Amino acid sequence: MTQKAFQDFYPDNLAHCYGCGRLNEQGYQIKSYWDGDESVCHFQPREYHTAIPGYVYGGMIASLIDCHGTGTAAAAMYRAEHRAMATEPAFRFVTASLHVDYLKPTPINTLLELRATMKEIKGRKVIVEATVSANGIVCARGQVVAVQMPESFVK
Amino acid sequence: MTQKAFQDFYPDNLAHCYGCGRLNEQGYQIKSYWDGDESVCHFQPREYHTAIPGYVYGGMIASLIDCHGTGTAAAAMYRAEHRAMATEPAFRFVTASLHVDYLKPTPINTLLELRATMKEIKGRKVIVEATVSANGIVCARGQVVAVQMPESFVK
Repeated sequence: MTQKAFQDFYPDNLAHCYGCGRLNEQGYQIKSYWDGDESVCHFQPREYHTAIPGYVYGGMIASLIDCHGTGTAAAAMYRAEHRAMATEPAFRFVTASLHVDYLKPTPINTLLELRATMKEIKGRKVIVEATVSANGIVCARGQVVAVQMPESFVK
Repeated sequence: MTQKAFQDFYPDNLAHCYGCGRLNEQGYQIKSYWDGDESVCHFQPREYHTAIPGYVYGGMIASLIDCHGTGTAAAAMYRAEHRAMATEPAFRFVTASLHVDYLKPTPINTLLELRATMKEIKGRKVIVEATVSANGIVCARGQVVAVQMPESFVK
């Protein structure tokens, strides 16, 4: 895909997250894109990201929802301000709270699809709801309360 | 420590979780123990488990709470049945839901301490509440609703 992902717009000094930082060589480097009013992210777990054999461990599902959620929050904030993602100042969100409901075991040998929608923007806070699907079946649902990163976080 | 951890009692075929399976060579292999009525787990993140430089990424905190939570659920169920952990049948829990509140950035160059308590046992369900601390400061709080693994999960 030649389209740039949400995470490709993170400033270099905020692009080292294990889940979503393009500069973290050991990390997942997830990529999120708009698909209409939904954001979408595809991810292929490795064989060792297992819970019980054949299924993805819950922490990875939480990680994917978290990072896809904060990415979606940033992208939604640009949209709310009618700004292109390449424009300054850059938005970067951290997670205030994360909730995940595990509905079904998530198969590991399948490309996972995350879809998310922005439910609410209130000041510096964005609430995002997400699903994780495998083979078209929703295996987990999550909610991320994301908050625009305080300037004091940035070294 | 020569004491066996909760996870050391997981049956071999259920000991491959990336977060807590002793047989997952790539995984975190967390170890949880009783400390009175609380369970405790110490974990040292790697340098690349970063969110923004200097801090732990949220997905790892969620993973630790999740796996320490399911381990605590199993251990609590043995206690509720007045059984030693080495006795059969073995308890192994999966996560129905996970909630994490991120209170403060969690420093990465510090041994993290998780503490958890069992809040409720109801049939096959156990609710566990947990904290993640660094240098004595609580950085995150979580709740795990754990359910005894259905026999159909086990291959």
